[in-house]
Amino acid sequence: VSSEHERIAEITRRLQSGGVPTTLRVGIGDDAAVLRASARDLVLSVDASVEGVHFERAWLAPEDIGFRALSAALSDLAAMAAEPRCALVALTCPAELDDATLYAIVDGFAQGQAHYGCPIAGGNLAAGPALSITTTVVGESPERPLLRSGARAGHGLYVTGTLGAAAIGLQLLRTHREHLGPEQVARFRRPTARIEEGRAIAAYASACIDVSDGLLQDLGHVCAASGVGCDVELACLPLPAGSPLTREETLELALRGGEDYELLVAAEAVPSSSPLVRIGTFTTELGIRTLDSTGSPTAHAQLAGFDHFRPKSTP
Amino acid sequence: VSSEHERIAEITRRLQSGGVPTTLRVGIGDDAAVLRASARDLVLSVDASVEGVHFERAWLAPEDIGFRALSAALSDLAAMAAEPRCALVALTCPAELDDATLYAIVDGFAQGQAHYGCPIAGGNLAAGPALSITTTVVGESPERPLLRSGARAGHGLYVTGTLGAAAIGLQLLRTHREHLGPEQVARFRRPTARIEEGRAIAAYASACIDVSDGLLQDLGHVCAASGVGCDVELACLPLPAGSPLTREETLELALRGGEDYELLVAAEAVPSSSPLVRIGTFTTELGIRTLDSTGSPTAHAQLAGFDHFRPKSTP
Repeated sequence: VSSEHERIAEITRRLQSGGVPTTLRVGIGDDAAVLRASARDLVLSVDASVEGVHFERAWLAPEDIGFRALSAALSDLAAMAAEPRCALVALTCPAELDDATLYAIVDGFAQGQAHYGCPIAGGNLAAGPALSITTTVVGESPERPLLRSGARAGHGLYVTGTLGAAAIGLQLLRTHREHLGPEQVARFRRPTARIEEGRAIAAYASACIDVSDGLLQDLGHVCAASGVGCDVELACLPLPAGSPLTREETLELALRGGEDYELLVAAEAVPSSSPLVRIGTFTTELGIRTLDSTGSPTAHAQLAGFDHFRPKSTP
Repeated sequence: VSSEHERIAEITRRLQSGGVPTTLRVGIGDDAAVLRASARDLVLSVDASVEGVHFERAWLAPEDIGFRALSAALSDLAAMAAEPRCALVALTCPAELDDATLYAIVDGFAQGQAHYGCPIAGGNLAAGPALSITTTVVGESPERPLLRSGARAGHGLYVTGTLGAAAIGLQLLRTHREHLGPEQVARFRRPTARIEEGRAIAAYASACIDVSDGLLQDLGHVCAASGVGCDVELACLPLPAGSPLTREETLELALRGGEDYELLVAAEAVPSSSPLVRIGTFTTELGIRTLDSTGSPTAHAQLAGFDHFRPKSTP
């Protein structure tokens, strides 16, 4: 194991191999990073990935751990319709973590900074009892930041992409059946923050959140912040193609499974060119109802999503 | 133990009891915080406090844990001569951490945000194997940010305050002798980031770093970044008054002990009104020499400061 300062030097080399972008006046290596002033408001978020809680090392290549931590953090910027500017990465490593694994995690961040055009501007390296990665992201806000609180009764509920793929992939990994669904496993391992989608909807969306804890739970946050309820039409949910699970299992993971990092969007109307799929309608009655194809309420809405301090409620 | 969302609601109440300041367009509670645009460059830093690595719960009241995590993070802004604008707090809690302890830690952050005028704009709450706090801070840069790389041979080495008090306090806590040095213990428990001092020196300092890992180690970073060496005059070191340890022990902790969060400053000259104490001179010869009162080199410079992956080198 190299010393802390040898490790920081190597991490810096790997993250700054392409130079320091002009948006950064100072990158990695001083007491703090300096981001050049912008005329727009700044959007700030932080997200943690803890081994044994958010992931197991058996499920992910080290590069995936880095890429997915950046994606998960940037997903909150996507949900605000913000444009990424830079990120900070705080790594806590157990003593037995070898240099090669650490540097491969950093390579995953390097892949992420290239993919998103979001340079890693700084960070922190410390010893600790478990591998833990805390990623802070900074973005530029659109003129009107997209909040959770703008949904109104009568607005449609829309979603990008499909729901449930990451949770299916996770279930396959947990049960050693990853060969049954390589696409779903890839969705779990390498989620993508919907940055472009978020910026595209800023003009017409009334509210937005990213699906990190499950559709029902994250929709619940939008409803609570907006003071509305929602009817979700189960027949409209965009389920992932080729799921190796039963339709009922797939539907449950689409409702409860987190970490898809798709965007849930409220809008009065969407342009005909929009790739968003309508899955429900906000209502004046509080609470979330799930409706079957005949319009009758189903029992699915009772299921909760992920709660860090109620682990038994989770898949 | 309350649920994650009950905890977030209570944390939000405690941190936003005074309302959301006007510099924040959006505070805690949405996918991300929104900080209003500023004409000045932004300074960004992140710092981690991990139980069992950076502190033990027996040494600190829960409120101290929060206050000190914010101080440690803000100290990096002080060293850049930046003015704090906001902070984000990512908390990872073991399952057995009770609500009262968690909320007391948050109260420490609330005391810190009031002390520094630096609102907590957002954060993250997750379960994990140990109590871990990762604090991101955002500040405004002076026109010329103060870097580590500006020291030149012939410039003086200066320091704010005294050196070694926090390490003395830590040693007293570790050996159950805290009654022998309540002031030093308080310096460990409630360090203060030297924000005002950092802003005051911006006009004349050529380089700066905060003392988090020990004078010799942090001075080494300035020397490496600036391409210079340094002679440190041991007789000039401002030692804490009333140390219960021997003069030699106190001197060693002043050289090697971290977490004082004082500022080490390089300057060609300082105004006569400056409270900085001169402790040495930067040199063309690389390496750090410690000199006794006759100007002869001593052996102290061989001692290293804290390294997260070489724990045996630490006090």
